[in-house]
Amino acid sequence: MSRSIRAFKGHGTENDFILIPDLDDTISLATEFVAAICDRHRGVGADGLIRIAPAETGNAAEWFMDYRNHDGSLAEMCGNGIRVMARYLVDTGLASTGLLLIDTRDGIKELTVPTSGDVSVAMGKVSAVLGDVNVSVQAHEYPAIKIDVGNPHAVVFVESLADAGALLSAPEVSPLSAFPDGVNVEFVKIDGEREVSMRVFERGVGETRSCGTGTCAVALATAERFGLVGPSSWTVHVLGGTITVDLDASGNALMTGPAVIVAELVVDLDLR
Amino acid sequence: MSRSIRAFKGHGTENDFILIPDLDDTISLATEFVAAICDRHRGVGADGLIRIAPAETGNAAEWFMDYRNHDGSLAEMCGNGIRVMARYLVDTGLASTGLLLIDTRDGIKELTVPTSGDVSVAMGKVSAVLGDVNVSVQAHEYPAIKIDVGNPHAVVFVESLADAGALLSAPEVSPLSAFPDGVNVEFVKIDGEREVSMRVFERGVGETRSCGTGTCAVALATAERFGLVGPSSWTVHVLGGTITVDLDASGNALMTGPAVIVAELVVDLDLR
Repeated sequence: MSRSIRAFKGHGTENDFILIPDLDDTISLATEFVAAICDRHRGVGADGLIRIAPAETGNAAEWFMDYRNHDGSLAEMCGNGIRVMARYLVDTGLASTGLLLIDTRDGIKELTVPTSGDVSVAMGKVSAVLGDVNVSVQAHEYPAIKIDVGNPHAVVFVESLADAGALLSAPEVSPLSAFPDGVNVEFVKIDGEREVSMRVFERGVGETRSCGTGTCAVALATAERFGLVGPSSWTVHVLGGTITVDLDASGNALMTGPAVIVAELVVDLDLR
Repeated sequence: MSRSIRAFKGHGTENDFILIPDLDDTISLATEFVAAICDRHRGVGADGLIRIAPAETGNAAEWFMDYRNHDGSLAEMCGNGIRVMARYLVDTGLASTGLLLIDTRDGIKELTVPTSGDVSVAMGKVSAVLGDVNVSVQAHEYPAIKIDVGNPHAVVFVESLADAGALLSAPEVSPLSAFPDGVNVEFVKIDGEREVSMRVFERGVGETRSCGTGTCAVALATAERFGLVGPSSWTVHVLGGTITVDLDASGNALMTGPAVIVAELVVDLDLR
């Protein structure tokens, strides 16, 4: 290996990431390198990559999350990824337990990191959007609730998660004009009081094991459905694990879930 | 990490593996650990795992390939995996370039490993099996050629690899009695003189980026189709790269292809 770098692999509810600590802010990541290392067969494999860089001078946060999608493109924020980054910072002594601020392309995020176990991240405001929307899957049309978590979601309640079928292609959403930038679709089954299970079809990706903003959308949609007002706490089961979403009276979501470091890596930076 | 071990990730035509050097033969691999590290979201991710162990005393080979499937179960041999293991042994100085013997559950295999580049492995005898077999896909029935490479294959010639469709489920093979243990199905397009492209649906797995025995089956089936006798050399393009298959006059196949080490890993042996 000509120019090798140290990296880590971790996941939050099986949404998985390569972490590259770049404490001196000296690593320039080629798009082709990110796509190659995230490739699940010719690389290591991950949903995305996080370069852990120092935040700009004068920033209230000490660290910046430079998030890249699986294909190497830039992204603003990832709710599962930022928890894994926070776990890394605390486990390695780069940050203290308790309150932790991390800067992202979507602004500074506030996390709470205990010595071990689940990590919490404030995800910002979640809001229901007026308008009638329908989702069709398995030749059945369902009414959906439009939710804005910074990105667009359509939440559908089903009797059984199997009602969504194999989900090998995107569910049909109508009217298309309701989501000019596409939409993430969640199928939700009520399990009990403030406890739900969900599957998610992410726009441009397909069905995934977990979606952080999706769990927040589902919590608010379920609260709306039952006409709940005021703070509420939700247990949301995704395919890859369990997330807790706490909504305050203003609709701000606090997401709490696992963040696991699985392996340390040494990778050839010239990988393409 | 409580008990961490050093490992590597590599691939041959995008058939990817975790390699665990166990030079002292002291590592006991729990099935749950293998399944967890091979899991593409909660682990590192790979099609299979190879523990590199010393061969038994008195064996002509110095090293033994302890191959495990993605789910942790034992397997006899893997043609792409053994090339990656050979590349690791030579790159780290544990074996010399040139001829290399590696013991497997399917007996001793003979490889040729240059200083860099593609690795060759003698895959043993490939033979055509008499009997009419048909494969149905995309509502179209094709005649197939039955090939035995130690494991069973049905090879189908198509005008375009797209004729096989999305291959999300196993193509229908008839009569079922021809393959009591299931069958790997290859779709082949003739690209030129002794050059073909293929897609493969592996039994119990689904469509994969590559299948070592499949490339040998396709080379022989194409030779049979054109009535070629005597030695012949085939360029076989799979989704994950290109393999060369050399058939001798007796039907013995020598498979030559890439073997790449991508990353070094340190993994928690208690991963589940």
